[in-house]
Amino acid sequence: MINKTKFIAVIGGSQASQKEISLAEEVGRELAQKGVVLVCGGLGGVMEAACRGASSEGGVTIGILPGENRREANRYVQIPIVTGMGYARNVAVVKSAQAVIAIGGSYGTLSEIGHALQNGIPVIGLDTWTLSKNGITNKAIIPAQNPAEAVKKALELIAD
Amino acid sequence: MINKTKFIAVIGGSQASQKEISLAEEVGRELAQKGVVLVCGGLGGVMEAACRGASSEGGVTIGILPGENRREANRYVQIPIVTGMGYARNVAVVKSAQAVIAIGGSYGTLSEIGHALQNGIPVIGLDTWTLSKNGITNKAIIPAQNPAEAVKKALELIAD
Amino acid sequence: MINKTKFIAVIGGSQASQKEISLAEEVGRELAQKGVVLVCGGLGGVMEAACRGASSEGGVTIGILPGENRREANRYVQIPIVTGMGYARNVAVVKSAQAVIAIGGSYGTLSEIGHALQNGIPVIGLDTWTLSKNGITNKAIIPAQNPAEAVKKALELIAD
Amino acid sequence: MINKTKFIAVIGGSQASQKEISLAEEVGRELAQKGVVLVCGGLGGVMEAACRGASSEGGVTIGILPGENRREANRYVQIPIVTGMGYARNVAVVKSAQAVIAIGGSYGTLSEIGHALQNGIPVIGLDTWTLSKNGITNKAIIPAQNPAEAVKKALELIAD
Repeated sequence: MINKTKFIAVIGGSQASQKEISLAEEVGRELAQKGVVLVCGGLGGVMEAACRGASSEGGVTIGILPGENRREANRYVQIPIVTGMGYARNVAVVKSAQAVIAIGGSYGTLSEIGHALQNGIPVIGLDTWTLSKNGITNKAIIPAQNPAEAVKKALELIAD
Repeated sequence: MINKTKFIAVIGGSQASQKEISLAEEVGRELAQKGVVLVCGGLGGVMEAACRGASSEGGVTIGILPGENRREANRYVQIPIVTGMGYARNVAVVKSAQAVIAIGGSYGTLSEIGHALQNGIPVIGLDTWTLSKNGITNKAIIPAQNPAEAVKKALELIAD
Repeated sequence: MINKTKFIAVIGGSQASQKEISLAEEVGRELAQKGVVLVCGGLGGVMEAACRGASSEGGVTIGILPGENRREANRYVQIPIVTGMGYARNVAVVKSAQAVIAIGGSYGTLSEIGHALQNGIPVIGLDTWTLSKNGITNKAIIPAQNPAEAVKKALELIAD
Repeated sequence: MINKTKFIAVIGGSQASQKEISLAEEVGRELAQKGVVLVCGGLGGVMEAACRGASSEGGVTIGILPGENRREANRYVQIPIVTGMGYARNVAVVKSAQAVIAIGGSYGTLSEIGHALQNGIPVIGLDTWTLSKNGITNKAIIPAQNPAEAVKKALELIAD
């Protein structure tokens, strides 16, 4: 049964702009409306906004924390996972999801994009990093124009 | 709110005796009846039996997996966390809980007992390891006679 | 004493072009000539070439491996560290160094660039990713024209 | 070539008795005299004493650290590995060795004994935990009477 429930990770910085916060909250709402479980790193900024949005629509939120105590989770995390492994937990955030939505451009987010792509997990980008090499833009991060499109594309990319 | 929900880890081997299976299933049922979220390593044996017991009473079950795919979770895990970190995930299993119930005597369980005690997380034992040093029995693993007593002792030891 | 020995990580894919192999081998030689200890992920491609270059000049090579057995290390790794943690080991590769030289453009390398920048560890790039956001190129990855310049810049950036 | 160099881990608490310190220092000396590379957790107490003993005989010492900075290594660590993963690093300490010598009885040591035995890595004990189950002593931890015997037994158990 669980194998039919979709888990999507929302990744983004604990320091975030107002625009990023708005995008994240709307992504959280969209995920909850579609019955998708939200996975994130459990802290503030983009992570908190996504959890707040999901919670407002009755969604389930998982926060995979870097530190030693679940009290570091934002208040909208329902399932806090305490790893005590620092930013090695970024790997578990992306691997626990079938698709990733990246919002904004922190370096932690960049590491998570790398881990996701390395594992063949699709990444949808909202106002996030563009990667290029030798002047050629890499197409691996799939751009979305808005939260609804990001969630729609992520769901399409999850293989049944 | 989440800070009031209790999480208890049930640890034990993926190879288990019939007696251990019975103990684990009953511990799972007791936890669910008390509204406690069950955390485990997500695989078979003791872990599967505890999840099956909790599920039968409508409880919430989290499986923190060592491998690369949530399909390795037993069928009673509702929240699979995919770490890809092998047995380093044992640390996250115990840290995500406020108390640990150890059933049986695998070496993986021993490592989890060590991590829990190192972190000051109380460990209740059902038919598990006894530790001694220089002929003196260590009292850190709190023995319980049966599943109901194990859950009762674990709940008493969780600080409010 | 150890606090005076410089450790520099060379990161790059296990699948690499001939150009990347040449760059990595020359970086390895340069590091060894300067008395720098080479840290890498211990596998093939860029990692093996860098270790081969360092070994040819009598340098010390450390390979922090993802898997379960030191036999997976390339033959030029002198100090194999077996983590069993999969790609979570990428964090340890960059944190064990005071600067990072990135060669080529695999996604694992991208994750390591993210982890390094998140930790304030300088990253020098040779034929690697370019990052941009909203059309503006990010300057955090410091470009080098050739291996000698990469090593020179890395050493300059390591605070005494 | 590296595949012929033996790595042995010395595990024990960062708080240690004078007797444990003496045992650890002598184990370190014995390992160095036999040309064995010493792996440990890199901190104080038993770890520092073992590294000091090995260093005094010209041996190589590796410290796999839990924290964020190699400055936390004891002064006798020649190869500091910075994991930033907390006590999940215990897994890497034992997996990087072909045998483990356990000294004294901290809970971190217990977790490492569990990880080693789970992985089929032989554990020699000096004044450490005794494990039993249902009143029957477990024989997996091989007792040694003194440091020389511990090192001798560990070397015999490493398969060629």
